[in-house]
Amino acid sequence: MKKHQLQDTICAPATAAGVAAIAIIRLSGNKATDIADGMFKPAGGQKELANFSSHKMIFGHIVREESLIDEVLLTRFVAPHSYTGEDMVEVSCHGSPYIQQQILNLMIELGARMAHPGEFTMRAFLNGRMDLSQAEAVADLISSNSEASRKMAMNQMRGHFSKRIMELRQKILEFSALIELELDFSEEDVEFANRDDLLDLLNETEAEINALRDSFSMGNVLKLGVPVAIIGKPNVGKSTLLNAILNEERAIVSEIPGTTRDAIEDTITIGGVAFRFIDTAGLRESEDTIEKVGIGRTYEKIQQASIILYIFDASQTSLDEIAETMKEFRERVGDENKRLILIANKIDLMEEIPHHFRSLVDLETIFVSAKRKENISMLTESLLKTVEQHPEESRDLLVTNSRHFEALTGAGKAIEAIRKGITDQIPGDLLSIDLRTALHHLGSITGEVTSDEILGEIFGRFCIGK
Amino acid sequence: MKKHQLQDTICAPATAAGVAAIAIIRLSGNKATDIADGMFKPAGGQKELANFSSHKMIFGHIVREESLIDEVLLTRFVAPHSYTGEDMVEVSCHGSPYIQQQILNLMIELGARMAHPGEFTMRAFLNGRMDLSQAEAVADLISSNSEASRKMAMNQMRGHFSKRIMELRQKILEFSALIELELDFSEEDVEFANRDDLLDLLNETEAEINALRDSFSMGNVLKLGVPVAIIGKPNVGKSTLLNAILNEERAIVSEIPGTTRDAIEDTITIGGVAFRFIDTAGLRESEDTIEKVGIGRTYEKIQQASIILYIFDASQTSLDEIAETMKEFRERVGDENKRLILIANKIDLMEEIPHHFRSLVDLETIFVSAKRKENISMLTESLLKTVEQHPEESRDLLVTNSRHFEALTGAGKAIEAIRKGITDQIPGDLLSIDLRTALHHLGSITGEVTSDEILGEIFGRFCIGK
Repeated sequence: MKKHQLQDTICAPATAAGVAAIAIIRLSGNKATDIADGMFKPAGGQKELANFSSHKMIFGHIVREESLIDEVLLTRFVAPHSYTGEDMVEVSCHGSPYIQQQILNLMIELGARMAHPGEFTMRAFLNGRMDLSQAEAVADLISSNSEASRKMAMNQMRGHFSKRIMELRQKILEFSALIELELDFSEEDVEFANRDDLLDLLNETEAEINALRDSFSMGNVLKLGVPVAIIGKPNVGKSTLLNAILNEERAIVSEIPGTTRDAIEDTITIGGVAFRFIDTAGLRESEDTIEKVGIGRTYEKIQQASIILYIFDASQTSLDEIAETMKEFRERVGDENKRLILIANKIDLMEEIPHHFRSLVDLETIFVSAKRKENISMLTESLLKTVEQHPEESRDLLVTNSRHFEALTGAGKAIEAIRKGITDQIPGDLLSIDLRTALHHLGSITGEVTSDEILGEIFGRFCIGK
Repeated sequence: MKKHQLQDTICAPATAAGVAAIAIIRLSGNKATDIADGMFKPAGGQKELANFSSHKMIFGHIVREESLIDEVLLTRFVAPHSYTGEDMVEVSCHGSPYIQQQILNLMIELGARMAHPGEFTMRAFLNGRMDLSQAEAVADLISSNSEASRKMAMNQMRGHFSKRIMELRQKILEFSALIELELDFSEEDVEFANRDDLLDLLNETEAEINALRDSFSMGNVLKLGVPVAIIGKPNVGKSTLLNAILNEERAIVSEIPGTTRDAIEDTITIGGVAFRFIDTAGLRESEDTIEKVGIGRTYEKIQQASIILYIFDASQTSLDEIAETMKEFRERVGDENKRLILIANKIDLMEEIPHHFRSLVDLETIFVSAKRKENISMLTESLLKTVEQHPEESRDLLVTNSRHFEALTGAGKAIEAIRKGITDQIPGDLLSIDLRTALHHLGSITGEVTSDEILGEIFGRFCIGK
């Protein structure tokens, strides 16, 4: 980030686009108060914004050359007590896109420029209001669409994850300092850093890093939604099942107009966890395009899924056919951490569950009637189990960000090299290189070590106005 | 509006739906502060919201049973100094639809209910914060998409229109009181209300009401956009012309990401006035579906337009053909307050404008090259003239609302009846009935006279959260 860019005063709408009661426009930078002064007339006649205290909403008029643009509430945030750490102004105006545009135009005429995506949060980072992993969590929080993703983002934003990383880094830093000191006294052949202590530390650190790395697959799945594939022959009730699950959960969510509008189709939140139902062929396409059991044709889709629901018509399917499907599944997919749940559908058409079906109990089988919405809660509970096998307390420290995952991988490799180096009794200056690599990777997570390029990449993914 | 409904505390998102940096959730009613107290923990440990002053943004946590939902800024507005005139709370949270839903759920659990569309503004009206025409202007302001519509809505919201209506009504009210007094003393045959003065007043009032009524067609057109139809043979350059006009204006509007997303297709704002280009056949449909000159087939579309642009290929069109079209136009459409502008296109294909085309100057003809964007500004200026024939000062009092137009029509008729009654020397008690009718209609505009039904109809058209 070039220094001169931080000198700019930036503006952007902070609320979603569209017609609404209210919209918020943000202004941040040295000139925020001056620019606001140039366009805002407080009701009651007081003139200068500097006379108003920070965080106080002031009613007044946005004007351009005496012509009234809008009646607004305006709030000053005096540095450093603002989101960015700079002087900020928020204008709460009538939610007409046209009026928002007029106010932004006015700000730009008075010397502000449009903010880049994520620029407010980047400034918050550069001004020391939050570290890099916390800044990344802001974007995750905004796009969270389930309790699990919200909670993970919130924990990360509050700095729990950063704190752990910084602690790990601090320990390595201390040893690194001792090793560097040894190098200064290398002719005297002293050992300030006890090699056994260092090995203990490395083992401990490596174990922690590996645990964090391992949490990524679950963290990522929780953040984006657990991918579920529904497969089966035509007309066994795939869509009906999906609708039944959807209804089951919709009943719990209170009916708030406007809040479900943005729900991604086929993502269903169960017990606070998002499940992303993959659109396998046959679910949407004309059902008769698939003649055989689903696995062959939907193989690629299955590869993306963590959970596979194999649904069959219990009133018409033989055990042989199920066994054949299971065999095909194992051959093509293996287990690969995938969970296969058998759904015996259409039990409403049967007088009783046939005796020989009992053998299916060894496999994970749920008998349902998607049509009559019977036993659907058994299925949703079963889906949740996949997630809940990971104990709650460890969830605070799930890695959800692929950048963090890569940095942890890099740090892990460096630590492995250090450990090997110590065992091989390599000289301190070579150890030192690997130590610095480990420090670099851990530091890149929180932003203690960073580059313009990385910042540009991270904040470029944010929305405008954040 | 039933009184008990005003006892409810209502909540709703006030910003547009979608993922964004910030979202605002509103709470209004007796229990607003209590509900907010039940879910908000201010940073710094102070507990009761009552300890914080009105209009002060407070940083803190939204919590449900010790579990953190979001970090927010919360503002109290202490009655009567709020939008609704009631105790209000605004929560500025992270703009995730999921988080918004959680906060709304929490408010509902604590005793609020979801607001109906327009309910905040209806309460502002019922609590005397604004009159009915001002409340209606809030909705117009939010949906304004041009300088003209914004300005009209703002004037109306600020009460300029209401003031004039109330003044008119006040005068009639005074005379009405005198007439009523005469009725009390009817046996003494006195005339408190001088009939000549009354007639003067009626003439004056009627003139004003008629002027307001007449402004409706222009006001409505400015509010919704001036309807323009582009007609002409295939391949004369209709789409190219529309694009050229669009480009001409886009260059002026500063490029703000996100602000043009909601622009209605084919509505172009020129000099602050919206022009709504009607989709005439041939503009979108396959061009060769129209064989003849446009008027015959596009007759219906032309009926909706205030301005008709008849475009022809100047390099290939004979004066005879133009004359024939003009004749057809006059026969089928007449003038009916419609303006016909001739666009002689493709002047880039011609060495010079043919001498005989000079006769077209008597008609309103503009020679352009849509392809090379030549002379397009002449056209846009000409379009603006239609609107600017109405002097600026009268625009403050344009009627834009069909409900107001109907009320003014009703009041006008009643006044006509009164005037006739006076001339015919009908008894005071009969005059009195017409006077009350006039008062009723004028009072219904500002809401001095109203009914639950009318309120329901007006506010039902608002968006949620306003």
